[in-house]
Amino acid sequence: MKTYNQPSPDQWATLLERPLMDVSDLENRVSTILQKVQQEGDRALRDFTARFDGVQLEGIAVSPEEFAASEALVSQALKQAIQTAHTNIDQFHRQQQLQTEVIETMPGVKCWQKSVGIEKVGLYIPGGTAPLFSSVLMLAVPAKIAGCQEIVLCTPPAKDGSVHPAILYTASLVGVSKVYKVGGAQAIAAMAYGTETVPQVYKIFGPGNQYVTAAKQLVNKSGLPIDMPAGPSEVLIVADNSANPDFVAADLLSQAEHGIDSQVVLVAFEEAMVRRTLDAVDRQLVDLPRQEIARKALENSPAVILESEEAALQLVNQYAPEHLILSMDRALEFAGHITNAGSVFIGHYTPESVGDYASGTNHTLPTNGFARSYSGVNLDAYVKKITFQQLSAAGLQKLGPVVEQMAQAEQLEAHKNAVSIRLKALKEID
Amino acid sequence: MKTYNQPSPDQWATLLERPLMDVSDLENRVSTILQKVQQEGDRALRDFTARFDGVQLEGIAVSPEEFAASEALVSQALKQAIQTAHTNIDQFHRQQQLQTEVIETMPGVKCWQKSVGIEKVGLYIPGGTAPLFSSVLMLAVPAKIAGCQEIVLCTPPAKDGSVHPAILYTASLVGVSKVYKVGGAQAIAAMAYGTETVPQVYKIFGPGNQYVTAAKQLVNKSGLPIDMPAGPSEVLIVADNSANPDFVAADLLSQAEHGIDSQVVLVAFEEAMVRRTLDAVDRQLVDLPRQEIARKALENSPAVILESEEAALQLVNQYAPEHLILSMDRALEFAGHITNAGSVFIGHYTPESVGDYASGTNHTLPTNGFARSYSGVNLDAYVKKITFQQLSAAGLQKLGPVVEQMAQAEQLEAHKNAVSIRLKALKEID
Repeated sequence: MKTYNQPSPDQWATLLERPLMDVSDLENRVSTILQKVQQEGDRALRDFTARFDGVQLEGIAVSPEEFAASEALVSQALKQAIQTAHTNIDQFHRQQQLQTEVIETMPGVKCWQKSVGIEKVGLYIPGGTAPLFSSVLMLAVPAKIAGCQEIVLCTPPAKDGSVHPAILYTASLVGVSKVYKVGGAQAIAAMAYGTETVPQVYKIFGPGNQYVTAAKQLVNKSGLPIDMPAGPSEVLIVADNSANPDFVAADLLSQAEHGIDSQVVLVAFEEAMVRRTLDAVDRQLVDLPRQEIARKALENSPAVILESEEAALQLVNQYAPEHLILSMDRALEFAGHITNAGSVFIGHYTPESVGDYASGTNHTLPTNGFARSYSGVNLDAYVKKITFQQLSAAGLQKLGPVVEQMAQAEQLEAHKNAVSIRLKALKEID
Repeated sequence: MKTYNQPSPDQWATLLERPLMDVSDLENRVSTILQKVQQEGDRALRDFTARFDGVQLEGIAVSPEEFAASEALVSQALKQAIQTAHTNIDQFHRQQQLQTEVIETMPGVKCWQKSVGIEKVGLYIPGGTAPLFSSVLMLAVPAKIAGCQEIVLCTPPAKDGSVHPAILYTASLVGVSKVYKVGGAQAIAAMAYGTETVPQVYKIFGPGNQYVTAAKQLVNKSGLPIDMPAGPSEVLIVADNSANPDFVAADLLSQAEHGIDSQVVLVAFEEAMVRRTLDAVDRQLVDLPRQEIARKALENSPAVILESEEAALQLVNQYAPEHLILSMDRALEFAGHITNAGSVFIGHYTPESVGDYASGTNHTLPTNGFARSYSGVNLDAYVKKITFQQLSAAGLQKLGPVVEQMAQAEQLEAHKNAVSIRLKALKEID
């Protein structure tokens, strides 16, 4: 990490610059994949899976037998851990449900909002060496609570055509039965357009590589909503003098191991804290299986020494970190002033990894400064809020003249007339 | 309108087909405008305004004097109407505020969500002959309630360089002081990138023509959020035998007068109801200033006769109308089963125009079937919901082993270590 001692605020933007993630050069290739899936359906999925995942699929859908077999392949300890995480995530997201409340804005004018689950949603879970069953929890639990009728999950198969049992176990636990062995841009296409096997959905969620990102961007441009724009994962840690350098180092590394483009920012108030933390990083790094990745991520990451908590607050809100860890004695108070962040981890015993897995909050969060305008995935992401209004005759008699006045001023005579014709009829009844 | 008597469900999609709104052919032209504004700032805004709006601007920003002058130019009656609408809209959106509630998912594991207004938002209000001050209310009121710090409003000037006083009066009333005389794609560019005069924003809202739509799509593709994808406005009316054909006709016309591509759908259960409604349409049409527009919109619009309310419900949820008017005796009950719609107008005395202006609900709603997955504009659209978590030492001792188990299974050793190192330290204290 490169250390910056009390840089002036006008230097912050430069030293906190994020790596560019531009997938526009992939657009043509990905667009071809999308088109082929749209035209050829399952056949295209099989072709791309053979080409990119190196396996000739028998069935694209995971069979009931495969689901059943997964149960025995996951250790009891892991099952229990997943169950606990499930309970916490379920509890936190269930509390986000909208209670419909009728507002009478004027006598006889009732208005309300009702939350209705998006009927069909698609979840993408990346493949690779590690099975990201935690993302299954984070994406499927709120979908279930929202009442989404059809939940489709796509994930690339391993070379032997299997899906990792921990993924299948978790999907089963949450109640997702439609799991398909398809990855990459072709998976996004399958869910966007539907194929003979994979159902079409109305919104797509989930992380992925640059092909998945480009595919999500392209289908989004045609009006299909996605969870949020993607970027490399990141953490910013504010460590005051009460912080434990070993803890802070471990937190920095837990972000750095994600990928070589991970962003890791340390903000402290004393040079000694930075030095002791970086020493601890060096000590811990050597034991990590993913140390090469972490090392590269750290090379491009800054440690910033600031003179005050006010300055730190300003820097944090300007950077808008995906994850914000507050290793501070007065962390809760500091947290109260945060305006731009995805998820905030308060105090010395709240590492980011608790939120990544099991505290209850969602780990699908806005990166790349998108926290200025986007929320992380929450229950809202899976519902539409429909508005309703019901006027009594008396309500229309009261509100009608207001509408007539405004419609006339906007020169929309038929809008006015829809009120006038009713008011006239009511007058005749009187 | 063309009448379809009991079409089978597999014909519905075809007869309800919406006009395509493809702006991709404009991309190059709009992209050039965006680039020029990004590079040249105010100078480009002045050039484009001269070219497209036919006026050489003195100042781009509306001056305090112009605001003050607008006050006297709006009639007392219109001011009062706007104030009443303001009160209702404010009341309905204020009720949507999130109350932060701390959830203890496990002993010592506290999680909560906090709603924070997006710091800077941009509102676009189209120009033209009629001043759309109602859109100022609909877009600015929730921005104020959300606590957005900077609200920027762009609207094209008239040929004399003025902005309609009703727009300025409404902006003032709501508390929006940064109004800029710039329209079209150049306005979207100004708010997306910022110029010497127009501040850069983090999200853009508002209706507009095809250039505005294309510009919003392009900036959205680069990660700047927008309210929702655009499409022609539409209404679907379900009229049972209790409906008043004159009322229904007036409602159809109030949608049809919007534009020649407006979508207007009538669903009834008796041929007589359709016939009487269409007769009423013909009678009312002749008195409308915008009758030519309405006539063209109606030409492409279907009236559908169905055999049951169940079938109607199915058709409505499949079509996902922006506006849904239920001119039915049991409208409230029917409304309870709606899963896809923007806003629903219940009963014989609730014309769409009350929601367009003043009932309290928002009139910025998802068109083109987007109601399947998008909400209309509401308070959520102006905030991020940030999550927080705080674990006590005891909380981490309880939850930590769960996280260790899961992180290990995902092969993220540093994630595990961020917990282990703390648990070890706690053990040493004990």
